[in-house]
Amino acid sequence: MKQELIDCRNRIDKYIHKTPVLTSHLLNKLTGSELYFKCENFQRMGAFKIRGALNALLNLSDEERNRGVVTHSSGNFAQALSLAAQTLGAKAYIVMPSTAPEVKKKAVNGYGGEIILCEPTLKSRIETAEKIKEERGAVLVHSSNDINVVLGQGTAAMELFEEQPGLNCVIAPVGGGGLIAGTSLAVNYFGNNCKTIGGEPFEADDAYRSLQSGKIEHNKTTNTIADGLKTELGDITFPIIQKYVDLIIRVEEKEIIAAMKLIWERMKIVVEPSGAVPFAALIREKEKFKNQKVGIILSGGNIDLGNLPF
Amino acid sequence: MKQELIDCRNRIDKYIHKTPVLTSHLLNKLTGSELYFKCENFQRMGAFKIRGALNALLNLSDEERNRGVVTHSSGNFAQALSLAAQTLGAKAYIVMPSTAPEVKKKAVNGYGGEIILCEPTLKSRIETAEKIKEERGAVLVHSSNDINVVLGQGTAAMELFEEQPGLNCVIAPVGGGGLIAGTSLAVNYFGNNCKTIGGEPFEADDAYRSLQSGKIEHNKTTNTIADGLKTELGDITFPIIQKYVDLIIRVEEKEIIAAMKLIWERMKIVVEPSGAVPFAALIREKEKFKNQKVGIILSGGNIDLGNLPF
Repeated sequence: MKQELIDCRNRIDKYIHKTPVLTSHLLNKLTGSELYFKCENFQRMGAFKIRGALNALLNLSDEERNRGVVTHSSGNFAQALSLAAQTLGAKAYIVMPSTAPEVKKKAVNGYGGEIILCEPTLKSRIETAEKIKEERGAVLVHSSNDINVVLGQGTAAMELFEEQPGLNCVIAPVGGGGLIAGTSLAVNYFGNNCKTIGGEPFEADDAYRSLQSGKIEHNKTTNTIADGLKTELGDITFPIIQKYVDLIIRVEEKEIIAAMKLIWERMKIVVEPSGAVPFAALIREKEKFKNQKVGIILSGGNIDLGNLPF
Repeated sequence: MKQELIDCRNRIDKYIHKTPVLTSHLLNKLTGSELYFKCENFQRMGAFKIRGALNALLNLSDEERNRGVVTHSSGNFAQALSLAAQTLGAKAYIVMPSTAPEVKKKAVNGYGGEIILCEPTLKSRIETAEKIKEERGAVLVHSSNDINVVLGQGTAAMELFEEQPGLNCVIAPVGGGGLIAGTSLAVNYFGNNCKTIGGEPFEADDAYRSLQSGKIEHNKTTNTIADGLKTELGDITFPIIQKYVDLIIRVEEKEIIAAMKLIWERMKIVVEPSGAVPFAALIREKEKFKNQKVGIILSGGNIDLGNLPF
């Protein structure tokens, strides 16, 4: 997959921001590690997801792209696919539950996506997306369980290694698994004796339990503030994670909020709860990371300022 | 003063961060201007004030520095002088009203400053500082009305011009006047046909009225969320401002909050209310700045996350 990652990087490079890698003396002192934060909160549309969405679209034939793409998502991927399609002059159909907040619908519309409302069940979401696929000929793009999406998300870690080749490990959040799978591929091919570690809420710990049991497990609860991490692994992301991810650290809700607050207060940057999960994982097990060079993927910064946990 | 600014810059350079200049396509589109945000919220201790504090300390003789410095402040300058003194191995005495929030006292202690409490009146603050000066031989450093502090604060705009020589104007917040005075000197000597504009809350508009009347006016109210801008001009800052500042734009409280929210949401960075005032001023009079290259000093990012206005 090394060449695929390089090709992907070249394919999407001109459409994305090369996000900065930030450091903080204070947080280094606090944790005893040397931390390198890859700031995907500064990425276009505020999250890494634009990377995978662009790669998926750019892998379509012109004819396919002309027919448009469809996905079901009410989160960052809905905005990412809309913006990626707009950037490339294609049409994006976004299937969203009728209960989705107005602010999310507005954001999708703002990026030119066409919203199709469905019932707030997974069944209705999948069926509605299938219907759009058949009726309008649109190509279905899954938010994580798609190899082109996985490769796209892996480019954030590739950029991180260009700035910091000597990292001992990289920590990324685990939701549907697209980011952690892509990150683990990048670590495998471009890291130097580097480990991939996932951060996951206890309240949505399907990936942790899947690695334990050796098969795809489902979430028992999704009662987490990290709303980007409620999704589950799929048949494409799971085998990659099984092979290349060294460890998943679970964190409690209050640890996510505390880590997020520390990042806002000390680094003066806005990161969403899902994006703070890897740093929460590091703090929870900080003895493990003592004196190590640690890359942390701050995955996104999209948050409702009217509804903060502090 | 050109050579004084250059000397000051060289003197403090190794002790401060060279803060980034950020841009935002979205905010450019929204305002119709080309905006360059000088991010002093990423400065050491979270605000530009460390610049002036360091320059004041570095201008003392070794003998004076050994005796220590004293100031009265409950805001960012208290932290700045403490950190500057700590950095240079000197002692800082900080006079604070007994009513100052615990979080501010903690921050000063964290940077090694020694707090002396006084009554919450200006009279008591000044008297207590004078007492420390006499009893301990400490040198009094004012938070804004001191030419070395003014020169130090001007170095932020100097750095901005190095990255963007072609700015049409620079907007900075106006409190005690140290930052706007220093900025106006930097604009005068290093800008190219560039204007200096101040942003000030209607609720603490002493500088606006001082420019109108030609003498130092006092605040009628200080009921503003921009807590760094409640202070007043002095006999050193006022003449510089009178000579070199082209315009002061006053803004309403709700405009400050809206500007701050826009910066957090769109740029994903944390800026304090005082730091959002220049951007609020630009939005209020955006027709004036159409198609111009505008430098904006984001002065700081120290804010109590438990007490946000949204």
